[in-house]
Amino acid sequence: MLERYGHGGDLESAAEIYGRSVFLDFSANINPLGPPPGVMEKLRDALPAIIRYPDPGHRGLKELLSARLGVQPEQLCIGNGAAECMALVLLALRPRKVGIVEPCFSEYRQLSEQFGAEVQSVYGSRASGWRAEAEEIEKRLQAVDLLFIGQPNNPNGIQYDAGDLRRLADAAERCGTYLVVDEAFIDFIPEKKRQSLLPALARYPHTILVRSMTKFYAIPGLRLGFAAAHPNVAQAMTGKQVTWSVNGLALLAGEACLQSGEGYERDTINLITEQRGLMAAGLRKLGCDVTEGEANFLLAGLPAPWTAENMQAEMGRRGVLIRSCAMYPGLGKEHIRVAVKTHADNARLLDVMGEVIAGTSSSS
Amino acid sequence: MLERYGHGGDLESAAEIYGRSVFLDFSANINPLGPPPGVMEKLRDALPAIIRYPDPGHRGLKELLSARLGVQPEQLCIGNGAAECMALVLLALRPRKVGIVEPCFSEYRQLSEQFGAEVQSVYGSRASGWRAEAEEIEKRLQAVDLLFIGQPNNPNGIQYDAGDLRRLADAAERCGTYLVVDEAFIDFIPEKKRQSLLPALARYPHTILVRSMTKFYAIPGLRLGFAAAHPNVAQAMTGKQVTWSVNGLALLAGEACLQSGEGYERDTINLITEQRGLMAAGLRKLGCDVTEGEANFLLAGLPAPWTAENMQAEMGRRGVLIRSCAMYPGLGKEHIRVAVKTHADNARLLDVMGEVIAGTSSSS
Repeated sequence: MLERYGHGGDLESAAEIYGRSVFLDFSANINPLGPPPGVMEKLRDALPAIIRYPDPGHRGLKELLSARLGVQPEQLCIGNGAAECMALVLLALRPRKVGIVEPCFSEYRQLSEQFGAEVQSVYGSRASGWRAEAEEIEKRLQAVDLLFIGQPNNPNGIQYDAGDLRRLADAAERCGTYLVVDEAFIDFIPEKKRQSLLPALARYPHTILVRSMTKFYAIPGLRLGFAAAHPNVAQAMTGKQVTWSVNGLALLAGEACLQSGEGYERDTINLITEQRGLMAAGLRKLGCDVTEGEANFLLAGLPAPWTAENMQAEMGRRGVLIRSCAMYPGLGKEHIRVAVKTHADNARLLDVMGEVIAGTSSSS
Repeated sequence: MLERYGHGGDLESAAEIYGRSVFLDFSANINPLGPPPGVMEKLRDALPAIIRYPDPGHRGLKELLSARLGVQPEQLCIGNGAAECMALVLLALRPRKVGIVEPCFSEYRQLSEQFGAEVQSVYGSRASGWRAEAEEIEKRLQAVDLLFIGQPNNPNGIQYDAGDLRRLADAAERCGTYLVVDEAFIDFIPEKKRQSLLPALARYPHTILVRSMTKFYAIPGLRLGFAAAHPNVAQAMTGKQVTWSVNGLALLAGEACLQSGEGYERDTINLITEQRGLMAAGLRKLGCDVTEGEANFLLAGLPAPWTAENMQAEMGRRGVLIRSCAMYPGLGKEHIRVAVKTHADNARLLDVMGEVIAGTSSSS
């Protein structure tokens, strides 16, 4: 199985399975523009600095993020990827019961169980656009010590309304449950449409926002994420972190990305918005049931009799990687997730999938 | 305090305290030769790969390490620095009581307490060359669930005899205690003098060896370490690791370092061995009480009335950083640790310290 380590983007496993080394990878959701202009050059110039330990206080990056997000540096915990931030939340807050809103990023369950918590699920359904009912989520919130929710949610890209989230955060304060909002992909959403609790964070000491810098800025190989929360929570998280967990080049890349100007960010958002629409239309034309997500990926149900497993294998042999979502609780064996990339790449994906469905390709 | 984050090598704190940005840093123990020839070039060429996720299986590096160390890939757990390996040991084995042999690397206690264990200490004394009595260690081993021991030990550089270690490992098997041998600095010791349990590891399912690749290969900014242990232990450790915890450039650097040939390794060991002797002699001439360590650093007691705090401040103002060891349980306020670097750098350290002691410098 391509997701033998639980995630997309595993080119080493793909090479082992499909016997080739070059792939067009739609199984990981990385900004197709690559890192912002100038960042690679800055990293190249800074390479000699790897002979020094990283700043254990993450001071430079915290300052820049603080200015950009309008939070205090004391409210930030910089992590070795957003995944480490989630692990630190669990280590710091030690929930015995964790709620999750399925279908969702597999690490919520995986990490919770890894650290000994019992996991309770609420489910969204296709009929409701994969959104779980606000009342259902709130009921679960009251029954657990901590609840994870994706905004926009992976693998379907849906957002909850900011008003719903505020009501959830209010409820979390009332019942003393921690609310962890995973905003790993929120930067891909135009600012006007972004539904984030960030502006109201000071009112919600039980809310923790987790963000990734590796997806939007296309540096997943370096690992970088952060959490914004009440200073007590941020400090407790940092207190569970292994010293130097965030490497020096990641810190430097993060600083360079934040200083790279707005043009790249605007271009990314425009590209993704435009291409996502075209991609959704193309997938529907092939008979897929596509969810109207707002992120840089799309959840699609394949037309019968295709399963994600079969389609992944057929496309993998042709050098195109897609993410099977068959193992997501709440989804079916027909569900796949594809990243939104450049026009040419997306067209290639649609062509290859079309060939596979039509059974006309000779390249297998 | 320069060690406000608990360790040496913190140039950001040094800059804040001493109001300058360039330092000769003897507070971190990094190979003064820098990374092996060609490694920087390989990293530069590989920079574009940061747009991809790291291999979550660490397959390439495990294969090379397996061949080099004579262990199975299944016995290895690759970590985001040796410090993460120590954290994973604690997360995987969940000891309630942890034994440590003081004075030692502060993370043994810090991480153990961080993960809720009670720490019990045995002490070495100056009279015994800072080695704790083998019987004392074994007695403590029987009283705890896991015991950390440094080989060579930080901050004094002393090695225990391989026979003593085997007796300890035998005792660990008898009483079911895990023995974690921290070999972070063992590569700096000539192969003939190295006292490692590695060749006998298969006989000791309760023994875990932790090694660092950042010190010998001078890549602390990238973070890379590993543990070698029984496959069950290695698997349990990996099971507690956050996905992609080891970044892609670190994996690549590790592979490049292992493939760089023996010349660099021999040159490093020769340099350190020679310079450590000269440095010890120079420090003694200045009135220091120097421990006969075998690693790439030296523990020294300053001549009265100097304290580590005073000396660190005086030298820091002059652009030379040393590690205060006053906060190490078992050591006194006069203890410092200095890295062994190149001849010119070491001479500068001795000059500056001499000036400070003589009170003749005008550069403060």
